[in-house]
Amino acid sequence: MIMKSIYSKVNPIIYQENKLLVLDQRLLPYEKKYLEINSYKQVVEAIKDMTVRGAPLIGIVAAYGMALAARETVRAFPETPKFMDNLKFIAEEIKRSRPTAINLKWAVDLILNDISQINDTKKIIDAITKRAIWIHEDDAMRCQKIGEYGVKIVDHVIARKHEVLTKQSHNRNNVDEIASGLKPLAMTCSILTICNTGALATGGIGTAFGVILTAYKNDSKIKVFVAETRPRQQGARLTTFECIENGIDCTLISDTACGHLMHSGEIDLVITGADRIASNGDTANKIGTYQLAVLAKENNLPFYVAAPLSTFDLKCKSSSDIPIEERCAEEITNINEKLICVKGIKVQNPAFDVTPSKYITGIITEAGILKSNYMDSIQKIFNRSIVV
Amino acid sequence: MIMKSIYSKVNPIIYQENKLLVLDQRLLPYEKKYLEINSYKQVVEAIKDMTVRGAPLIGIVAAYGMALAARETVRAFPETPKFMDNLKFIAEEIKRSRPTAINLKWAVDLILNDISQINDTKKIIDAITKRAIWIHEDDAMRCQKIGEYGVKIVDHVIARKHEVLTKQSHNRNNVDEIASGLKPLAMTCSILTICNTGALATGGIGTAFGVILTAYKNDSKIKVFVAETRPRQQGARLTTFECIENGIDCTLISDTACGHLMHSGEIDLVITGADRIASNGDTANKIGTYQLAVLAKENNLPFYVAAPLSTFDLKCKSSSDIPIEERCAEEITNINEKLICVKGIKVQNPAFDVTPSKYITGIITEAGILKSNYMDSIQKIFNRSIVV
Repeated sequence: MIMKSIYSKVNPIIYQENKLLVLDQRLLPYEKKYLEINSYKQVVEAIKDMTVRGAPLIGIVAAYGMALAARETVRAFPETPKFMDNLKFIAEEIKRSRPTAINLKWAVDLILNDISQINDTKKIIDAITKRAIWIHEDDAMRCQKIGEYGVKIVDHVIARKHEVLTKQSHNRNNVDEIASGLKPLAMTCSILTICNTGALATGGIGTAFGVILTAYKNDSKIKVFVAETRPRQQGARLTTFECIENGIDCTLISDTACGHLMHSGEIDLVITGADRIASNGDTANKIGTYQLAVLAKENNLPFYVAAPLSTFDLKCKSSSDIPIEERCAEEITNINEKLICVKGIKVQNPAFDVTPSKYITGIITEAGILKSNYMDSIQKIFNRSIVV
Repeated sequence: MIMKSIYSKVNPIIYQENKLLVLDQRLLPYEKKYLEINSYKQVVEAIKDMTVRGAPLIGIVAAYGMALAARETVRAFPETPKFMDNLKFIAEEIKRSRPTAINLKWAVDLILNDISQINDTKKIIDAITKRAIWIHEDDAMRCQKIGEYGVKIVDHVIARKHEVLTKQSHNRNNVDEIASGLKPLAMTCSILTICNTGALATGGIGTAFGVILTAYKNDSKIKVFVAETRPRQQGARLTTFECIENGIDCTLISDTACGHLMHSGEIDLVITGADRIASNGDTANKIGTYQLAVLAKENNLPFYVAAPLSTFDLKCKSSSDIPIEERCAEEITNINEKLICVKGIKVQNPAFDVTPSKYITGIITEAGILKSNYMDSIQKIFNRSIVV
């Protein structure tokens, strides 16, 4: 099936020669303001302070950061060897800006590899810029494919729901229900998601959100439940914003209500993104993902992760190899710059958690849907996919 | 074991003839302000808008509300029959102020039963006042007993942890660790709790928090993890406040981090309160409790509910008989009166959830610790306890 390209109405970054315009996600949904970024230092800062966030988008911004860095560096070090030394130094600084998402490292290393054999500074700058744009466009294309694979799961869930409800109806011998072919609402797939995985997190329509948008554009009946996603509320601030901008039916819930809604039968499918996936399928993602996965399993609901192959880190054998970023206390103690608790209180603020692969029904990638045994299926997909 | 009485440094209500002073919990921890309440209408309002909250405390405030109502009513209807009719009418209004916590209904019905055979208005007023004070003091005493039973669980968890760690240490043949009797920190019981169940929620030291305070005063080594408890953040605002006022080591975490911390081995025990317990042990409590119970079970952690017998509603056979209050959208969309999402977004805001009894390790009451089979153990405790 070849589907026509799908576009989101949200655009988080615009690259122009010598500068990058990034939509300040900290201000969303209250204010839509693009920040002009002219230096790699500003890129590092924008990643650290989460002006831009989302694993694939961080990788793309880091790549553009390398392009800006190259232009800055050539002014100070016109000779290739010193230019290269400085660029490598900056590359490390960019890679350190956030520790958990692997896409950041992947993008920067890809660029370093590209330029390792080039001796001319101008050619290096051109190669970096070209690669950055490629990473951006490539991610958009991968999002499309993730959406196309994902929509099959949504349709499968709807078909399965129809089957189960029809059977129940027959068992109840409810002639009216059977005659009317069941109520249309019952045929809606209610999807629960956490954090933001849409255009604001990627170079295209998104990963988990890309599946949602594709299903919506494909006329699959969906209803989206968005978990607030404390501490930084990316669900409340960003995902509901993307739903509304694109016309998708969405309901905001607090993170505490996710289990209850699954248990009450209001959720049919859980889809999340990923920040890093180990070679056994263990998946690091936004804090709160692990508990959604456990709750989905307990309630016999499908739990899918959607992520491009650049999210996989085959060097990580399992969850224990994935570093978990601990972020500052203010994210927990303050909301909208106002204190929500006793001042100076002790806080623990892990930004991510790891979901063991046994809780994951499948991983939707641009190259297909992976299922358990993940060790094998991941190995196979990497053997047959051209991952640059 | 007779323990000496334990007091909290926090006091949510003060009753004086003709008036009730209530600590405005909506302003905590930023401001400690007592509101003066002179009429039953103000009591209904204070319960509805959550100036006071917590299942046992709502019952106590409702009882004082009946005392205020009786004094108001006698001025308008000095003759007993009309006085009684009006009072019964008000009683229904008070009972309707919040739907889930059963203590509210329990306290008001207790008072109605007390006065059903009295014919003199002055004597009725005296009987109501006496009963309201009794309900208050009685709840304080029940909290003490819950604390005393609960501390045994905490000590048991610590002993068990010591046993497991010593065995692991022997297996590793770690002479240093064995000689030093293991590290003191390892012998701390890390308790995760949600919402507020302390002095601010009861007539005494609290239910789940009463266990925590008793353990602390009893020199059991504890460390408390407090879940923020969105939407109304009673964990962040009230429980951390009570911890700090009483000198207890506490760490605030977001609701999304609970599962991760359990999975990482940082939690030893989960204790929560309850708003209503059905005769099969199914327990309605703050939204988010159900998911903690599922996560505790998945991680082999003990999950206890602490509640006085007044929380049990034997008329409810199971969870499906317990009404779940749906509260207003603003609790989800606004924090500290500021919007956290796109304006006008759709919201679902159940204030409670129900934890099926299969996830509950035990229920700590003032009359002992109940275990599965709950249908039997609850029946037995009610048969032998004098529940007024």
